[in-house]
Amino acid sequence: MPILVMKFGGTSVATLDRIRRAAKRVGREVANGYDVIVIVSAMAGETNKLVGYVEETSPLFDAREYDAVVSSGEQVTAGLMALTLQEMDVPARSWQGWQVPLKTTDAHAAARIEEIPPANILAKFEQGMRVAVVAGFQGIAPDNRITTLGRGGSDTTAVAFAAAFGAERCDIYTDVDGVYTTDPRISENARKLDRIAFEEMLELASLGAKVLQTRSVELAMRYKVKLRVLSSFGEMGDDAGTLVCDEEDIVESNVVAGVAYSRDEAKMTLISVADRPGIAAAIFGPLAEAGVNVDMIVQNISEEGRTDMTFSCPTNQVARAEAAMKKAKEAGEINFHDLVADTGVAKVSVVGIGMRSHAGVAAKMFQALRDEGINIKVITTSEIKISVLIDRKYMELAVQALHDAFELEKVA
Amino acid sequence: MPILVMKFGGTSVATLDRIRRAAKRVGREVANGYDVIVIVSAMAGETNKLVGYVEETSPLFDAREYDAVVSSGEQVTAGLMALTLQEMDVPARSWQGWQVPLKTTDAHAAARIEEIPPANILAKFEQGMRVAVVAGFQGIAPDNRITTLGRGGSDTTAVAFAAAFGAERCDIYTDVDGVYTTDPRISENARKLDRIAFEEMLELASLGAKVLQTRSVELAMRYKVKLRVLSSFGEMGDDAGTLVCDEEDIVESNVVAGVAYSRDEAKMTLISVADRPGIAAAIFGPLAEAGVNVDMIVQNISEEGRTDMTFSCPTNQVARAEAAMKKAKEAGEINFHDLVADTGVAKVSVVGIGMRSHAGVAAKMFQALRDEGINIKVITTSEIKISVLIDRKYMELAVQALHDAFELEKVA
Repeated sequence: MPILVMKFGGTSVATLDRIRRAAKRVGREVANGYDVIVIVSAMAGETNKLVGYVEETSPLFDAREYDAVVSSGEQVTAGLMALTLQEMDVPARSWQGWQVPLKTTDAHAAARIEEIPPANILAKFEQGMRVAVVAGFQGIAPDNRITTLGRGGSDTTAVAFAAAFGAERCDIYTDVDGVYTTDPRISENARKLDRIAFEEMLELASLGAKVLQTRSVELAMRYKVKLRVLSSFGEMGDDAGTLVCDEEDIVESNVVAGVAYSRDEAKMTLISVADRPGIAAAIFGPLAEAGVNVDMIVQNISEEGRTDMTFSCPTNQVARAEAAMKKAKEAGEINFHDLVADTGVAKVSVVGIGMRSHAGVAAKMFQALRDEGINIKVITTSEIKISVLIDRKYMELAVQALHDAFELEKVA
Repeated sequence: MPILVMKFGGTSVATLDRIRRAAKRVGREVANGYDVIVIVSAMAGETNKLVGYVEETSPLFDAREYDAVVSSGEQVTAGLMALTLQEMDVPARSWQGWQVPLKTTDAHAAARIEEIPPANILAKFEQGMRVAVVAGFQGIAPDNRITTLGRGGSDTTAVAFAAAFGAERCDIYTDVDGVYTTDPRISENARKLDRIAFEEMLELASLGAKVLQTRSVELAMRYKVKLRVLSSFGEMGDDAGTLVCDEEDIVESNVVAGVAYSRDEAKMTLISVADRPGIAAAIFGPLAEAGVNVDMIVQNISEEGRTDMTFSCPTNQVARAEAAMKKAKEAGEINFHDLVADTGVAKVSVVGIGMRSHAGVAAKMFQALRDEGINIKVITTSEIKISVLIDRKYMELAVQALHDAFELEKVA
């Protein structure tokens, strides 16, 4: 029988009643003829409670013990989901990560999946089991200790299972009904997308559209796993959601797929840096070492052997960036007149694979912002994305204006 | 280094603060030169919460899933205890049942321990680890699924580890500071015992003194594990508790060690049973099949081929016992005039290995009860125990009178 992977997040299994509702969706797919692998998160709130216990006990905790404690949340949900399915006469059993086994590296609390041998679960499917309920987010290290995959790891677990078992599709059930052209709280014209390309989803995910974990999208892209995002709260049958798929599976699409934003940005400018070969490395090396996540980088026109270097980073890393730059200056590694931080900015981006073949997207974007009197502070572009930094107070206005300018409320 | 097993029950690890206090006791034994195996229960209330989830989800639950869900409570405590010890600079790590491995039968939810290979933990002790924190109550079945040992299974886990590792002693930390000559809430003269023999403890445990699980005492007796019961709430150093040990290790003792009681008793009498060979089997066979836990049995004087048969059982099994007797009568297996149930009785017992070599204990007991005007309804005796059924309203008076009569407040 074809295999389907269904993943239910914490809010979708927050109570026994919600577990029952999720189980009904699983039962429907079994009736449709699928053998189903269900990946479950911990009941909403449980993981935070357990992490709180660990952090209060030991601020610089042993990650191996953290994993033993925190993985228990998914263990509970997996058992309860299996019991619920059995009550519905669906042959099901639970699997812990170590029972599958889902083999990972030994990087505890942030392990990476190495291998999922399908033999054990396939043997049970052959014996008539219809649903394998697997505790998400957890695996086993070479030394036989429990690992976890880091926050959002259950999405990654689901995609990895879909890849390992050649599943027809991986359905991610969550508390939103799909991926939107932009945040519906900001633009009332926001429209749910039927399909979106992996590359677009990756850009949107890393830009702060928190529907899917970036890692899970990367993995799905690499193994060509069809990924569907849909709500576990709507009526059954009315939940097509959004399919995240290969570019080739999208017949017709808008040039721009969506407008993303990020409030949490700071702009930093090193004034009058001595311009010489290797100066960029001399600046961004120390920032990387200090753990600063540099996002956009712009080097202004150089005059008389000096230049201004601007970069952006999360607001809460400004102090760290300043300290790293000061230290590098004192060590004589770089030379600059001043370092100016602007923490009142936001990033707005338009994303779309159609940009590759359509000119004029940037011009249209800049014109729409100009029409609203919004000043652009920094611009960066990639093959399928244009991002700008603007004053944070204009962020919502910019998102609305861009959504309207590219007519994202209309289907292509 | 010599090995010590220390077990902490649910109330002793109910909060992070109590886990810290328990960890200090462990640290002290490490400083004393022991390698320590710590067995932990789930935080108080957790197991009940998880059992509630399972029962609400599936009244006739699959015990394998029950075990997966319920065992998670001990997993959390084990990790937190290991982290707490590490914070105190004590080299420690947690072990789940399946990691040790603690191998059990596949009787899920009521599994029995088959084997605890000590190699894995001993190897870590040799590498410098000083404390192995083991999740109590759980193990692994031959099919690689998690099992639990039934309620109170953490005591049994602790004794089994002490036996498997040849531990010097097994310390059971609980919320009482030892075993008493009787319930201090009933007799203000009750005295904590320094030592008690396994056989006495077994009788007291099965008579309702809920300090230790009967199974764990049986196991300790079989493998000659020195078992100490002590409080995790008192001051450190002031906690000698009670040592449960081999009879030979008790130099001097009172004839009677303690007075036990059980409120939850019913007396049932089959009136005028046809007295013939095999009649007892014809009565108690159907009762056993119906799941009635028959305790005391007395057959009265036989007259004209008929006899009265009296037995006791827990109050909540009276209906079940009546149904079983009615059914056996209708099937023609037994014949009696009437079945009379008296649910207003209690059982009071005196227990002591000294009875074996001392005559007159029964006489003294009956005299003490007579002096208080208490009528005895049923008497049974074993080698080290005399039990009587009396009206429940006299129970406390009887316990006090017997405690005084045998002068249990005095050390032998």
